[in-house]
Amino acid sequence: MHTIRELQDLFKLRLSEHSFPSSPTTLYDPVRYVMGIGGKRIRPALLLASYDMYADAAGPAFEASLAVEVFHNFTLLHDDIMDEADLRRNKPTVHVAYDENKAILSGDVMMIYAYQLLEKYPEQYYALSKVFSQTAREVCEGQSMDMHFESVDEVSISEYLRMIELKTSVLLAASLKMGGILGNASIEDLNHLYEFGKNLGISFQIQDDLLDTFGTEEQLGKKIGGDITQRKKTYLYIKALELLSEQEASRLRQIYTTEGLVMDATHIAEAKSLITSSHVKVHAEELKLVYQQLALSHLDAIQVTAERKTALKELADYLLNREV
Amino acid sequence: MHTIRELQDLFKLRLSEHSFPSSPTTLYDPVRYVMGIGGKRIRPALLLASYDMYADAAGPAFEASLAVEVFHNFTLLHDDIMDEADLRRNKPTVHVAYDENKAILSGDVMMIYAYQLLEKYPEQYYALSKVFSQTAREVCEGQSMDMHFESVDEVSISEYLRMIELKTSVLLAASLKMGGILGNASIEDLNHLYEFGKNLGISFQIQDDLLDTFGTEEQLGKKIGGDITQRKKTYLYIKALELLSEQEASRLRQIYTTEGLVMDATHIAEAKSLITSSHVKVHAEELKLVYQQLALSHLDAIQVTAERKTALKELADYLLNREV
Repeated sequence: MHTIRELQDLFKLRLSEHSFPSSPTTLYDPVRYVMGIGGKRIRPALLLASYDMYADAAGPAFEASLAVEVFHNFTLLHDDIMDEADLRRNKPTVHVAYDENKAILSGDVMMIYAYQLLEKYPEQYYALSKVFSQTAREVCEGQSMDMHFESVDEVSISEYLRMIELKTSVLLAASLKMGGILGNASIEDLNHLYEFGKNLGISFQIQDDLLDTFGTEEQLGKKIGGDITQRKKTYLYIKALELLSEQEASRLRQIYTTEGLVMDATHIAEAKSLITSSHVKVHAEELKLVYQQLALSHLDAIQVTAERKTALKELADYLLNREV
Repeated sequence: MHTIRELQDLFKLRLSEHSFPSSPTTLYDPVRYVMGIGGKRIRPALLLASYDMYADAAGPAFEASLAVEVFHNFTLLHDDIMDEADLRRNKPTVHVAYDENKAILSGDVMMIYAYQLLEKYPEQYYALSKVFSQTAREVCEGQSMDMHFESVDEVSISEYLRMIELKTSVLLAASLKMGGILGNASIEDLNHLYEFGKNLGISFQIQDDLLDTFGTEEQLGKKIGGDITQRKKTYLYIKALELLSEQEASRLRQIYTTEGLVMDATHIAEAKSLITSSHVKVHAEELKLVYQQLALSHLDAIQVTAERKTALKELADYLLNREV
């Protein structure tokens, strides 16, 4: 059995040794570049941890864990084009470092390469690939909803939760399930692994929204206030509209939806003040806790000893306990 | 046994009845749009024909034939963004009819959906998926080489042939092989099917290059002279440089590689006149024939009766006998 730290280190080591295809260089250089930008490698760690829970080993699951990380980085690469983002983790994004055409095409080949990595497991290939495809499609659906929300005035809380479930949570859930498939987990355990990851992901995203408005740059790992600046219709915004007086809500809505309105420091401060005064923070923290407890109840239900769940418990704690 | 026409009609009918996913509409509307633009449906017809050669049926292979057609249309969709093409088959391209972000994301989901269509065949899923992934990656590699050729002065004939093999031929080859896999063809037959398709594709592309310069709009199905206007380094250009006198070659090279030079009617006419005077047409026709004969020798070698090869022979004739 391994700690999450050990699994992350193992992943990073094996990744550094992995030979990505090299020719044509114009296609594969951007792949190596984006895979080298770094990151916390949460998804591969989840996959390795769930495999380790059953197999008491991690190495054989490396290619599957790389598949989910390659897929995740493909989505970041294409999302950055769509969002016109210039920087990711303080490095130029692929479409800036190379060009947009290369970013599109290198992203495409990454998605295919992810499937090829799963070919290492002929016995489980069908099951792995089926979860992977379903999840990959849902991630696209989540991104589509997220983009669509920018152009509509009203988003409901359930639509928002569905969007973050698809855009963020299902890939965490699928990573855990794929590790379980490789470890020959029972159907029941696979289901609990999936639900653990899904609810963990939703809880994590609500926390991320909280940190984006109420946290520090250190906690969030990027600049605070991005959601308000981009007028993102997060849980905080949608729920605040419900909680505020009609007049205040109407003002907040106006700031978020008036076309052509420039989000200068005054507008950002006003929006933040309205959101703060709505006391939505308490509601968000409560909702975060609901999903967190749901996640942990599924982890509890998995039919292995408590000791074998240590790494996943630890990772859930790490992800959900950045203080708000 | 079916004729190619029957197989194309069957594909079109089944496609018209097929339910693509519908929600979110912002993601799947462009998918339905691009799949509805039409086209000759050559790849699915090849897959259905090679399956029919063994199984004496076509229906069960429909989902696999749709997978290759969905993949093909995904590549057209993303290529049109990269080429900034406004029209395809006289209809606005997806990034024009919708927007570029939707075109990127809908393309992504099409590639995933192609894999999901193959889930209909759990027994052959690993084999099908392996050919499909390998091919899909090669198509990206071909597109990458094609884009790269625009920015370099010299392209060799072997580099050009490799590029068209990857960008065009391998998907024809894979379609035939996938039909054979579903029909439980022998390893030898699968190899002959693949090589038949690969060489057919190269031959077809050389003919396409010939028609683009020497054909009529009717034969080509689009405006003549596009390759010269876009200064594409096709076989005709590369080989003409070899055949022309040093002075003529230097002039042709100048027209193609001088940065900022506008390809007006005078330059296009001059380039065409130089290419024509090089007598490269004879060489191209000969090369086309070499690949055509190679293709047919692999079709001959397949271990089924000549009668069962009728549809594929017919399709090869149809593809390669548009008069130049």
